Formats: sequence, C-alpha cells, structure tokens
Amino acid sequence: MMNPSLDQLETPTLLLDEARMMRNIERMRAQMQRLGVGFRPHVKTNKCLEVSRRLMTSATGPITVSTLLEADQFAAAGVKDILYAVCIAPNKLDHVLRLQAQGVRMSIILDSLEAAQAVIEKSRASAQPFEVLIEIDCDGHRSGVKPEAAELLEIGRLLQSAGLPPKGVMTHAGESYNCTGPKALQAMAEQERAAVVRAATRLRELGMACPVVSLGSTPTALSAENLQGVTEVRAGVYVFFDLVMAGIGVCAVDDIALSVLATVIGHQPEKGWTILDAGWMAMSRDRGTQKQPLDQGYGLVCDLQGQPLDDFILVGANQEHGIMASRSGRTSGLRHLPVGSQVRILPNHACPTAAAYDYYKVIDSQQRVSAHWPRFNGW
Amino acid sequence: MMNPSLDQLETPTLLLDEARMMRNIERMRAQMQRLGVGFRPHVKTNKCLEVSRRLMTSATGPITVSTLLEADQFAAAGVKDILYAVCIAPNKLDHVLRLQAQGVRMSIILDSLEAAQAVIEKSRASAQPFEVLIEIDCDGHRSGVKPEAAELLEIGRLLQSAGLPPKGVMTHAGESYNCTGPKALQAMAEQERAAVVRAATRLRELGMACPVVSLGSTPTALSAENLQGVTEVRAGVYVFFDLVMAGIGVCAVDDIALSVLATVIGHQPEKGWTILDAGWMAMSRDRGTQKQPLDQGYGLVCDLQGQPLDDFILVGANQEHGIMASRSGRTSGLRHLPVGSQVRILPNHACPTAAAYDYYKVIDSQQRVSAHWPRFNGW
Repeated sequence: MMNPSLDQLETPTLLLDEARMMRNIERMRAQMQRLGVGFRPHVKTNKCLEVSRRLMTSATGPITVSTLLEADQFAAAGVKDILYAVCIAPNKLDHVLRLQAQGVRMSIILDSLEAAQAVIEKSRASAQPFEVLIEIDCDGHRSGVKPEAAELLEIGRLLQSAGLPPKGVMTHAGESYNCTGPKALQAMAEQERAAVVRAATRLRELGMACPVVSLGSTPTALSAENLQGVTEVRAGVYVFFDLVMAGIGVCAVDDIALSVLATVIGHQPEKGWTILDAGWMAMSRDRGTQKQPLDQGYGLVCDLQGQPLDDFILVGANQEHGIMASRSGRTSGLRHLPVGSQVRILPNHACPTAAAYDYYKVIDSQQRVSAHWPRFNGW
Repeated sequence: MMNPSLDQLETPTLLLDEARMMRNIERMRAQMQRLGVGFRPHVKTNKCLEVSRRLMTSATGPITVSTLLEADQFAAAGVKDILYAVCIAPNKLDHVLRLQAQGVRMSIILDSLEAAQAVIEKSRASAQPFEVLIEIDCDGHRSGVKPEAAELLEIGRLLQSAGLPPKGVMTHAGESYNCTGPKALQAMAEQERAAVVRAATRLRELGMACPVVSLGSTPTALSAENLQGVTEVRAGVYVFFDLVMAGIGVCAVDDIALSVLATVIGHQPEKGWTILDAGWMAMSRDRGTQKQPLDQGYGLVCDLQGQPLDDFILVGANQEHGIMASRSGRTSGLRHLPVGSQVRILPNHACPTAAAYDYYKVIDSQQRVSAHWPRFNGW
C-alpha cells in the first residue's frame, strides 16, 4: 500500500522532512570532524529516539538532556553517558542516583557553593559518587560562574575536599541566538571557547585534572573556526533548524526540516486574512523572530512542497486559529486559497512547536508519510 | 498514608488548587442561574474528564470543544452533546461522522459559502445530516460573518435549500481579552449579545427557526447583565483563571487555581536573579500580560501557600530555566531563597501552561497532593 499523502491527514499535524533533517545532521557531523572535537548531541529539541539515534556518535551515547525524563527514556533505550545540562536541584539527586544504579554515567552541573554542598551531602548519605561539571557563564545569558570569579575556585576546592573533584567545566552561549551574521557568530564562538577554557585552566592550576571542557549552541557550533582546549560540543536545534536560526544566518529557510500542516477554514477578505486551523497551540507562542530584522509572525506559510507561499505569514494566532496574511499588509490582489486547502507552516522555534505533538509524521521526498516517530514531552 | 507534600515532588510540575477551582465553578454557576441561560462549558482549557465533570450541567453534556480529540475523549466518557467551536475543515467531516455514528449529537460551525458547500456535499455523499451553526463576527477578532452581511443570509439559504437548515448562530467575543474593567466588559458583553441575536433575527425573518443562539468568553460571561435572546453561554478559562484574567479585572490573583511548582537552582546576585527550574517549556511562551498595565513577565512568583512572594516575577525564560527577579528591577536587599527552595508560579494564560503537562497534581487545603488527574493534549 502507498504511504499516505498529505491531503489524507487531519490537521494540524507535525511534519518532519527526513531528507532536510539528514542534510542538517551531515553538516554538523562534517563540522565536528573538521574541528576535531567530540560531539554530545542535545536531545531537548527532538525528544525522540529515532531522531537522536541519527545524531549520536554511538548507540550508547554520549548525549545531553534538558530533563530527567529524557534521561529516563534514553537510559531505557541503552544510552550510557548522559549530561543533564540544567543546574541540579537537590530534590532531583535521588532521581540521578536511580539512573546511576541502572548503569548510566550521569553528569550533573552546578554553579554555586550551596548546590555543591547539597551534592556532597547526598553523596555521603547515599555512599555514591556524582560526576559534577561546574557551569561557566560566558555571556551573562543565565546561569554559571564567571571564569575569573573567586567562586569558581571555591566550588572546585569544596568538591575536591569532599572527594568529588569536578569532572570539568561546561558553558552555553545562549546569547548567540541574538547575534546576526558570520562575523558576530564567530566572535561569540570564540568568546564561549575562551571562557570555558580559561575556567578549566584556573582549576588545573589548583591541581584538579578537569578532563571535560564542554560548550555549545547550534549557532556557535556551526560558526566556530577553532575549538582548541575544548573536549566536546553540544548542540540540538540544528537537526531541524527553524526561522530564528535562519534569521541569524546559520541556515537557509530551505534547510528547515520541521513544519506544521494546516488547513484553510475561512477568510476575512476585507482584512486580507485567511483563517487556518493551526493557532498558537499548534505553533507555540514563540515569537523569536519578533526582534529580528524579518519578523515571521507566528510562522512562515509554505506550499505542500515546503516552498514559501507568496509573502504569507501567520500575523496572529488564537488557541486553534491562525491568521494568515501578507507580510506587507496588502489586503487586495492576494492569492485565494479555498476552504480546505492545505499549507505547511515553518516554526519560529522548533523546540516549543514540536513539544505540542506526541509524534512526528516523517515525510519522504514524494511528500508522503513514511513513519510516525514518537516524542516524549513533559518532566 | 498521608498524601505527599509539595517538597516531595520533583519539579517543574503542575498544581491545581481544588478549593480555588470549586469557588470559580460556583461563581459561574451562580452567574448563569442569575441570567437564566443555558451553559455549555468549554473544555479547551482543562482537557480533563475530572475537571470537566465538575463544570458540566449533566454527565452527558452539553460541552464545547476546540479539537476533535477532545470530542473523541469526551464521547468515550459518555458525553452526547458536543459543539466543535472552530470552523470546520472539510477534511474533518469524516471524523465528525464517526462521532455521530457513536451516538453523539455533534454541532459544527462555519462562516462561508465554500465551507457550507463542502458540508452539503459530504452530507449527500454519506447520506447523513450535520447540525450546522453559522459563526458570527461580533468584534473583528478572527472568524465569522458580520450580522448585517449579505453572506449570512446566503449561507443560511444554501444550507436550507440543501435540507440542512442552520441549527443556529454562535459568536465569541475574543476581543474581551483586551478590555479592562467592568464598564468595558459589560459593553463588550452587550456587543456580543446584540450581534448574535441580530444574526438570528435576520435568519428567522427568512423563515429559518434558528433555535440555537450561542455566545461566550469568560470575561463577557461573567460581566453580562442581560442575555435576552441568547440560549447558551460558552466559557472555559474561568475554571482556573490566570494572570491575564486578573489583569482585565474578572478575577483576583487569589482566585487563580493553577500554578507551576518550581525549585531554585542558582543565583546571579549582581543582577538580582534567582534561577528556577521552570522555563518557557513549563510556563509556555505566553506573554499575555505584556500589553496590560501590570506586566507579569512569564509568571508571578508565590510562596508554597500560593501568596505572592515580595514583588518577584519571571523576568525571563529559557527552555528549562526561569529567571526570577524583582518587578521593580532592584538588585539589592532582595530576599535570598537558597538553592533547593520551592516556589509556585502563577501563569499568564492557563491554556498553554496546562498544555505542557500530561496531568494535574490536585492539591488540598493542607497543600498536599490528593489526586493526579490526566489531561489529553494534541489533536
């Protein structure tokens, strides 16, 4: 039997273009090879065994996760080396111990003496070690200690004195999402590298081995020219890309592998509006392109082959309604898409859009659904 | 065994305060009774059998849904009267027929001749009737035909001539979310009523019975003083309320029944930041209070009893990180919440926040978890 075509699908639904995805994966693989650095893919964007399997350098890892639910799911699938890249909350340490008891090498991160103390206490109480990385703040984006901060050394010393010397340092250049163009991205990649390498150097000067030096974000990973001193790179959104990534210049719109299939359900002709059955529940409330030079509203509207359809974007969204209109604000001379027509909408940000769905509908080069790949959402 | 206390929960997780919810339900019930009008609760906010059971006027309905997945779930639970309140896409009519075949009285809506034609064709092909309401645009918010539009009568005539006379008219004053204060809300409620009653009158003048005259939104439902000519009200978010509803003045912050439990995972003292393990994945990207007089960021931070904690809000959010800071921007003299401390965060908009979770943790008056109530997300 033939695979279903798009017009047989009820909408909204999440499409994953496998050929585009594989091209994105190959691009990152080549970049890591060129830089000669380890790769620990972040699974937070895809939250899917089938997708992650295609990113990983081996079936047992390593990977990066954003939730312990992701760790549970990948551990159950045989992954043995997992970095949980959010500063650890003391009430999650029992969960980490359960994962370790399953034979998973878990790395946790922290950026304070308070958290280090909690980890030491739990290690003593459980008579189990933890592998701890200290998070470094390379760009003022959110968490981490500054590479020159006294607290970096204090945390290192505290962990070492308790028999849990830091396994290394890690950072994430979240501010790279606010850069535009290759020059700014290269500079941010170097800033990220220099910060985390400097932190490792300071800990080593105190006699700690600090074997792991980890960094990453999709924009910096793809822009870095030299990662001297770094042992591993983390990145996740590159597997699908999205309009935010296109806006900062790390991919083309044609590289975006994820889209939401939607159907026209009405019109408001005097306003130039076409109403779709994909609102913010289907696209997410993410407006990440709002501050970029090209604001894509709630998403860029494409035809069924995934090519942009005139200059249509979602200018507004309600829970289950998307308002499609010309980016220019034109209200006349617009292409009329009859009720029942289907379109594909590219998302601003792949992570929250994908999170609204329990699975991907994987589409092949004939725009037919070749597979359903489940996701795991939540915590 | 005692019910678990909040400090035994891994975070982030979604809390539902049952006493607050029951108070909100009772308030709407009393308002509907006072107005002497039917009530068809909207289940799109809660997407939960346990919650909806407490809203419904009978175990078999009526209810309003925003997706056909909601219709499926409630049909399986014995609900027999369901309005799907998004203009019908032709590719969903087979799904509607399946629901009808299960004995559910399904009402669908449309606002165009194109959609009416598609419904007529499907009715002929399947030899099954459809109950059709015509959507009326009362405020320019999204879908619907204007009550004075020629197209209203054309759609009515087309349906009638095909043996599917319109069951009635419906409208939704989505613009009520942009009103503030009782006067503006009362005026919007009257605008909503007048528009939909006028549309019914015009259809009746052509000889159509038009028995159903349906309207609703939480703000207008709670503000209406007179609903003459209306047969039923729809509302959904009132069951939990949220910061957007508090901002427009239809509830107090203390009425908000939904919150996200989060844990402190770090600090950036020089910026006055406390980092929480609840980011936009846990809160949603909704920034509905941004245009209100009091911008609540990504949520209002409360203590474990649900009372606002100083003037802390989430000023920023990453995927799994929330940045809590003083609303005033103060960076010194702030209360220090140690790593591991828990807080409850009230959401801007209950619908997208709840959609990130597979269940509610229901908490009793002792702040203990008395039940887990599952939700159904997606389409």
